[in-house]
Amino acid sequence: MIALPLPKPEVLGRRNEILAGLRALVPGDGVIGEPLRLRPYETDGLSAYRQMPLAVVLPSSTEQVAAILRFCRDNGVRVVPRGAGTSLSGGALPLADAVVIGMMRMNRILEVSFEDRLAVVEAGVTNLGITKEVEGQGFFYAPDPSSQLACMIGGNVMMNSGGAHCLKYGVTANNLLGVKIVTVDGDVLEIGGGHLDAAGLDWLGIITGSEGQLGIVTEVTVRILRAAEGQRAMLAAFRSTEVAGAAVDAIMASGVIPVALEFMDRPCIHACEAFAHAGYPLDAEAMLIIEVEGSAEEQDVLLDGIRGICARFDPISMRVATSAEESAAIWKGRKGAFGAVGRISPDYLCMDGTIPTGELPHVLRRIGEMSEEYGLGVANVFHAGDGNLHPLIMFDANDAESFRKAEAFGADILKLCVEVGGCLTGEHGVGVEKRDLMPVQFTAPELAQQRRVKSAFDPDWLLNPAKVFPLEGNGALSVAAE
Amino acid sequence: MIALPLPKPEVLGRRNEILAGLRALVPGDGVIGEPLRLRPYETDGLSAYRQMPLAVVLPSSTEQVAAILRFCRDNGVRVVPRGAGTSLSGGALPLADAVVIGMMRMNRILEVSFEDRLAVVEAGVTNLGITKEVEGQGFFYAPDPSSQLACMIGGNVMMNSGGAHCLKYGVTANNLLGVKIVTVDGDVLEIGGGHLDAAGLDWLGIITGSEGQLGIVTEVTVRILRAAEGQRAMLAAFRSTEVAGAAVDAIMASGVIPVALEFMDRPCIHACEAFAHAGYPLDAEAMLIIEVEGSAEEQDVLLDGIRGICARFDPISMRVATSAEESAAIWKGRKGAFGAVGRISPDYLCMDGTIPTGELPHVLRRIGEMSEEYGLGVANVFHAGDGNLHPLIMFDANDAESFRKAEAFGADILKLCVEVGGCLTGEHGVGVEKRDLMPVQFTAPELAQQRRVKSAFDPDWLLNPAKVFPLEGNGALSVAAE
Repeated sequence: MIALPLPKPEVLGRRNEILAGLRALVPGDGVIGEPLRLRPYETDGLSAYRQMPLAVVLPSSTEQVAAILRFCRDNGVRVVPRGAGTSLSGGALPLADAVVIGMMRMNRILEVSFEDRLAVVEAGVTNLGITKEVEGQGFFYAPDPSSQLACMIGGNVMMNSGGAHCLKYGVTANNLLGVKIVTVDGDVLEIGGGHLDAAGLDWLGIITGSEGQLGIVTEVTVRILRAAEGQRAMLAAFRSTEVAGAAVDAIMASGVIPVALEFMDRPCIHACEAFAHAGYPLDAEAMLIIEVEGSAEEQDVLLDGIRGICARFDPISMRVATSAEESAAIWKGRKGAFGAVGRISPDYLCMDGTIPTGELPHVLRRIGEMSEEYGLGVANVFHAGDGNLHPLIMFDANDAESFRKAEAFGADILKLCVEVGGCLTGEHGVGVEKRDLMPVQFTAPELAQQRRVKSAFDPDWLLNPAKVFPLEGNGALSVAAE
Repeated sequence: MIALPLPKPEVLGRRNEILAGLRALVPGDGVIGEPLRLRPYETDGLSAYRQMPLAVVLPSSTEQVAAILRFCRDNGVRVVPRGAGTSLSGGALPLADAVVIGMMRMNRILEVSFEDRLAVVEAGVTNLGITKEVEGQGFFYAPDPSSQLACMIGGNVMMNSGGAHCLKYGVTANNLLGVKIVTVDGDVLEIGGGHLDAAGLDWLGIITGSEGQLGIVTEVTVRILRAAEGQRAMLAAFRSTEVAGAAVDAIMASGVIPVALEFMDRPCIHACEAFAHAGYPLDAEAMLIIEVEGSAEEQDVLLDGIRGICARFDPISMRVATSAEESAAIWKGRKGAFGAVGRISPDYLCMDGTIPTGELPHVLRRIGEMSEEYGLGVANVFHAGDGNLHPLIMFDANDAESFRKAEAFGADILKLCVEVGGCLTGEHGVGVEKRDLMPVQFTAPELAQQRRVKSAFDPDWLLNPAKVFPLEGNGALSVAAE
């Protein structure tokens, strides 16, 4: 179980005063204090952890966010920013003495320029909402987390979200041009702007993926891209996970870049087929979904090349979608994979590590061995092309020992990722989930310097506390002591 | 004239002790204290400003750099990092109480991988030295500052250096994969790595162009690129600078990306022709040098397209190089432009601002008007394709009033750049030269946050002091008081 810092008694004791102060800043029904209405905010997509917040406030403008932050800083109140609450690493988990700042009311599209291929939107616009706004003109916003119907662009920026189609188009960081971010002092910083290499310091790198540690993003400028003429998906089924992993590495090494290259192992294939009826190969140990895009001719050339590579790995079967409907059915199974696994196991932990694609066969074999060692089932469904693993570890949350083992299994997988040259997280972020594994990835001086940069933005460590950085000692927050 | 902070008397008074301490860390002849041998370090490429340092130390390893920084921190000694000293913004200007850390002995190529298209080199390797190492295999390192024969890659990273061919290949930031940087505490941080989106935090953006404010870079991993089959240059001469500026904008808007697109006005054409005998058009008010690359057929197609665009702007003449020798002669004039202008004016200040290319005609006209208002000649020679201006303001350094006017003229040009949506610096950095203009580019909260980040790396402001951030008050250093 994850440790949370002790709440500040002086903040808990002044709850009514704090609610009144927030109501003065955000009039109407934008401040929530009633337990029943607070309940939806007690957890996020990582539902293993729950904690009711002190209050929730729903600002409608950058000015209100600035006023709330100034008020919280002046009163020593911790703050947890929240988009749609779809974080899979507990990035939006509240604390008992924290005010949750919910961004869902800041949902306006501020500007779209097809000439400059960009959109300026408020942080509470959903990921898919951007594409919906521009698809009539043949454009789209590329990163596509599975939660794209609900998740908000501000959260995408804070977690540097990915998605199945990031293999070709990159993750959030590669599609982000600028942000407006409010510091804990209520100052508004403009970082980046309407084109690459905008004037000013190149701070998008420290802001993107900062998980709410440095400030609250209220406006986002993203690139929009012209959609390809069409897409087509194919399936390839293999006799073992290692062989499928080797096929992935061969495709990537060939220089062909599919728009997506997804991997499912046997447990996942069966769970998804039962749900989506997509004609998945039930006799396979592992299956790849490979999508290409372009004109009909380009699709043919790319699919021919990929089929030729897959053929070298003794596939059980290969099937190319012949219609948009067939492609959609193939994707329906994949997009519903997490839910489908939920139907075969009472609970699961979704891990999120990255590895060099050349290490896929080795790492998949080790995960299988660990599954036996821990006595817990695992389903693998992930973005194979960019080496972004998502092992789903199946366990029973009502059995404390089972949960403890699942957490230890997950930690071992992530350590293995780092060992082979990969990373603790691909697209879900560190949050509370991987916080205590940060020393696996970073040296003590690196972590110390990261804490100092955090302190340079948030000297009292009020912003999204207990996330990203390991707590030190008995529940006290580690403020940069170095 | 630029203000420098007062030296610390306690440091000046302990000079012998400090020299002895440094000699214990860097044995042999790596510590310089004799005035005659210190003299070459009193200035850099911005020769208008001079100041002798306390001492110079020449480390040979990352470990020595770490030991020197720990020693300086423990003794409250300021530190000025220096590569080849070619900075055009005074980035390597010493202070009387500062130790200069010269990186020229760290000049080893550590690793070259043609498969992964990267080179790992020590910070003191010259820019051209990287290309020399890999050109036998048909590769090169893309950014090419005019000083590339001398300037060092560590300095390139710290100033985010550019060059004529950055139009196609990007500046240092776009060709950098990772750095090893030593903090003022002597800790070694590894940022980025052997591929894009390496594991770990995306801190390359705050390190690149940080001008020695955050730490000292000792190792650099850069991308190397496969060289094109061939290059060819052409000249196009126009009746006015505004019309030439409009032609630049039209070429860039067409979607053709030349590998270089350089601009020279009349004073510059005449100065360079006298030196290079390249057959420059002496009857023109402005001239473009346009280079394309690829196979012979690609070169023909690209040059045809560019000639067609130039033809719409009533050119006086156009000439396409027919041989490698002719291309080289065209470039010889451009590469020697700063020296050539030095032959027609006792002194000049080289400005370095960027603007959107659409603003070229307007900004060039305003620079011409300001030249009349200030009564000082100006020669324009710059990277027009990416809107990176280099007006050379001609003046007489022996005439204090002339120098004062030249500085004011330069500041007005840079303010104009920011006004039209550009930036104070394109590739030379802020240094001491543009330090006091930072509030033109950034708001007070933005500067305050930048100072806090600086303090998070360098709490006592010992690293490359008096650069980048405006001094506050009477010569005292502004440490982040916010």
